[in-house]
Amino acid sequence: MDKPIFDKSIGEWQAEREALNEKVFDLAGLEIKRFFSLDTQTYRAGALDAKTKELLGLVASLVLRCDDCILYHTIRVKEEGVNRDEFQEALGVGLIVGGSIVIPHLRRAAARWAELEEKEVSR
Amino acid sequence: MDKPIFDKSIGEWQAEREALNEKVFDLAGLEIKRFFSLDTQTYRAGALDAKTKELLGLVASLVLRCDDCILYHTIRVKEEGVNRDEFQEALGVGLIVGGSIVIPHLRRAAARWAELEEKEVSR
Amino acid sequence: MDKPIFDKSIGEWQAEREALNEKVFDLAGLEIKRFFSLDTQTYRAGALDAKTKELLGLVASLVLRCDDCILYHTIRVKEEGVNRDEFQEALGVGLIVGGSIVIPHLRRAAARWAELEEKEVSR
Amino acid sequence: MDKPIFDKSIGEWQAEREALNEKVFDLAGLEIKRFFSLDTQTYRAGALDAKTKELLGLVASLVLRCDDCILYHTIRVKEEGVNRDEFQEALGVGLIVGGSIVIPHLRRAAARWAELEEKEVSR
Amino acid sequence: MDKPIFDKSIGEWQAEREALNEKVFDLAGLEIKRFFSLDTQTYRAGALDAKTKELLGLVASLVLRCDDCILYHTIRVKEEGVNRDEFQEALGVGLIVGGSIVIPHLRRAAARWAELEEKEVSR
Amino acid sequence: MDKPIFDKSIGEWQAEREALNEKVFDLAGLEIKRFFSLDTQTYRAGALDAKTKELLGLVASLVLRCDDCILYHTIRVKEEGVNRDEFQEALGVGLIVGGSIVIPHLRRAAARWAELEEKEVSR
Repeated sequence: MDKPIFDKSIGEWQAEREALNEKVFDLAGLEIKRFFSLDTQTYRAGALDAKTKELLGLVASLVLRCDDCILYHTIRVKEEGVNRDEFQEALGVGLIVGGSIVIPHLRRAAARWAELEEKEVSR
Repeated sequence: MDKPIFDKSIGEWQAEREALNEKVFDLAGLEIKRFFSLDTQTYRAGALDAKTKELLGLVASLVLRCDDCILYHTIRVKEEGVNRDEFQEALGVGLIVGGSIVIPHLRRAAARWAELEEKEVSR
Repeated sequence: MDKPIFDKSIGEWQAEREALNEKVFDLAGLEIKRFFSLDTQTYRAGALDAKTKELLGLVASLVLRCDDCILYHTIRVKEEGVNRDEFQEALGVGLIVGGSIVIPHLRRAAARWAELEEKEVSR
Repeated sequence: MDKPIFDKSIGEWQAEREALNEKVFDLAGLEIKRFFSLDTQTYRAGALDAKTKELLGLVASLVLRCDDCILYHTIRVKEEGVNRDEFQEALGVGLIVGGSIVIPHLRRAAARWAELEEKEVSR
Repeated sequence: MDKPIFDKSIGEWQAEREALNEKVFDLAGLEIKRFFSLDTQTYRAGALDAKTKELLGLVASLVLRCDDCILYHTIRVKEEGVNRDEFQEALGVGLIVGGSIVIPHLRRAAARWAELEEKEVSR
Repeated sequence: MDKPIFDKSIGEWQAEREALNEKVFDLAGLEIKRFFSLDTQTYRAGALDAKTKELLGLVASLVLRCDDCILYHTIRVKEEGVNRDEFQEALGVGLIVGGSIVIPHLRRAAARWAELEEKEVSR
C-alpha cells in the first residue's frame, strides 16, 4: 500500500483541532464554554490518578466509536506513561463491551499507537 | 495551518449529495422512496414552523453524531433565518444532552457556520 | 387491559426522581455537581425561548431513547405551553430521524401526554 | 428464584402494546401514521421472504438494544417458522457485532423464546 | 416516598441473572458460549489490574447506558476495593463523556452503591 | 461533479484494511486475537446459510452506522450471490429501523454497490 493510512499526521491533526477549537470559541456562549472547562477539569488527578482517568476516557471513546476522541486519549495515555500492554488490554475491554462494530476504530487506534512509538524512537 | 479544514466546500458537498441521491434512487424500491418522501414532508411547517423543526433536526443529528445530517440542517436553519446566538444555543442543548463525545461534531458545525457567514458577506 | 400501563404515576415518578437525586448529591464530587448545575442553566431562556429549548431536549431524548428524559421534557414542554399538535409534530421529527426503534418510547410518551391532559381536566 | 423473570406474560405485553398504539393514534398526525404504515409494509415478502426480513429486524433490534422490538421480532420469527438453531445463530451475529452490552437483552430474548416454546407444547 | 426505588434487591437481581444465564446456555451454540467465556477472560488481571479493568467496564457501561451492566460492574468494583471517591470520579468521567442522557443511569448507580454500603455495615 | 465520490477504490480500501489488521495483530494480546477469530467463525454457514448471516451483518452495520462494516458486508453479500433487489430490501429494513440518520450511510452503500456491479461488467 503506497498511500499513507491517515490523511493527516498526528501533528497536523492537533493543529487542525486547535483551529477548530477557535471556531467553537468564536461562536460559543457561556454554557458551551463552561462545558469545555468542566471537561478539562474532570480528567485532573483526584482519588483516581490522571492515567486511570485517561484510560476511562479512551475506552468510553472506543465503545462510542469517536475517532477524534480515541486519538486524543491515545496521545494522553501515552503521555501519562501507559505502556503497550496496558494500552492493548484497555482496547480489549472496549472491544468485548462494544463488539465488532468498534473494530475499524480499534484498527486506527493501533496504527496511531505505532505512529506515536515511531515518533519517540526518531527523536 | 495551511491545509483547509474540510476536503470539500459546502457547494462540493451539496453536489456530491445530489450524485449520491441518484445512486440511491437507481437502486431503491418503493419503501425506500416512500421513506425519503416522508422525510421531506416531516419538516414542512405545521403547528411548529419550519425553523423550529429544522432546529429539532439539527439537535437530533448532533446527539446522534452524524456530520452529513448536521451540515444539512445547519444550512437549512440558516436559510430559515436562525441567527448566530440561536444556533449556538441549540448546539449547547445538544452538547449537554450528548456529552463531550459530540465535541468533534460541534467543532465542525462551528466551522461550517463560519463558512456560511463568509459566503453571505462575499456575495 | 386491566393492568395500568405504567407502574408509577407521574407524581410517584417525580418523587422517586427527587429521592434518587439525593443519592447522587450524597455521592457526587464537584465535577458532577457542576454538570447538574450546567444542565439546568442550559435550558434557561436566551436567544431561544424556554419552550423551544425544551422541545430540543425532548427530541434529543427521543432519538437517544431515554424514557426518564422523555418524560421529564414532556412535563416541561407542557408547562411551557406546548399544545398537542406541536407535541406530536416534535415527536414526528424524532421518529423520522431515529426510526422505528424509537416507537416503544413514542408509545410511552403518547400515554404520558394523555395522563398529563387528564390531570389538567380533573383539577 | 420464586419471582417470575418478567412482570408481564407475552399475552399481557401484546395487550399493552395494543393499548399504547391506540394512545399513539389518538395523538398522531399524518406523518406519524404514514411512518407506522411504511414500517408494516417494509417487512412484507418481496425479493427477500418474510422470514429473512424478520430476522433482519430481530438482529437490528438486538444491536440497538430495544427489548420491546426484540420481543416483537422474536414472536414474528417464530410465526415465520424460524427454528431454535436458526434463532440462536441470528442472536450470535447480533452478539458479536454489538458486544457484551447486548447480553442483558440476549438473556431476555432467550427467556422469551423458552416461553414461546412452552406455549406451543401446552396448546 | 414509601415505595422502594428498585423492584429487586441486589440479591434478587443476582438470582435472576443466574436464572437467565441458564436460559442462554440452554439455547446457545458454540459461538455464543465462546463469547461468554472470552468476556470473563477479558477482565482478568494482566498488565492492568482487575480493579482498573472493572472501572473501564463500568464507564463503558455507563456511556452505553445499560443498567444491568452498570450494576454488575458496580458490584465488581466494590469487590475489587474501589472506594466511594474513586467510584464517583469514574462516574464523573462517564457523565462528561456521555452527557445528561446518562443521568438516569447515574442516579440508579448512586442508589445501588448506597445499597452496597448499607449491606457492608449491616453484616 | 468531477471529484470522485470516494477517496479510495474498493481495492485500495481492502489493501488498507489488510495493512491496518497487521497493526492490530502487532499490538494485540490473546483476548483481541480470540475476538477476531470468533468474529470470523460467527459468519460461517450453520443452521442459517452464509448469505443470510452476511445480510444480518449488513443490516446490523447499517443501523449502527459504520461505513467500513457496511462496505465489508456489501462485498460479502455480493460474493454470496445476493442480487440487487435483495440488497435494496435489506437496506430498506435498516432504514426503517434506524431512521433518516442512516441515510448518509445508505447513500454510500448504494454507490459502492454500483461500483461492485461495474467491476463485474468490466471483467
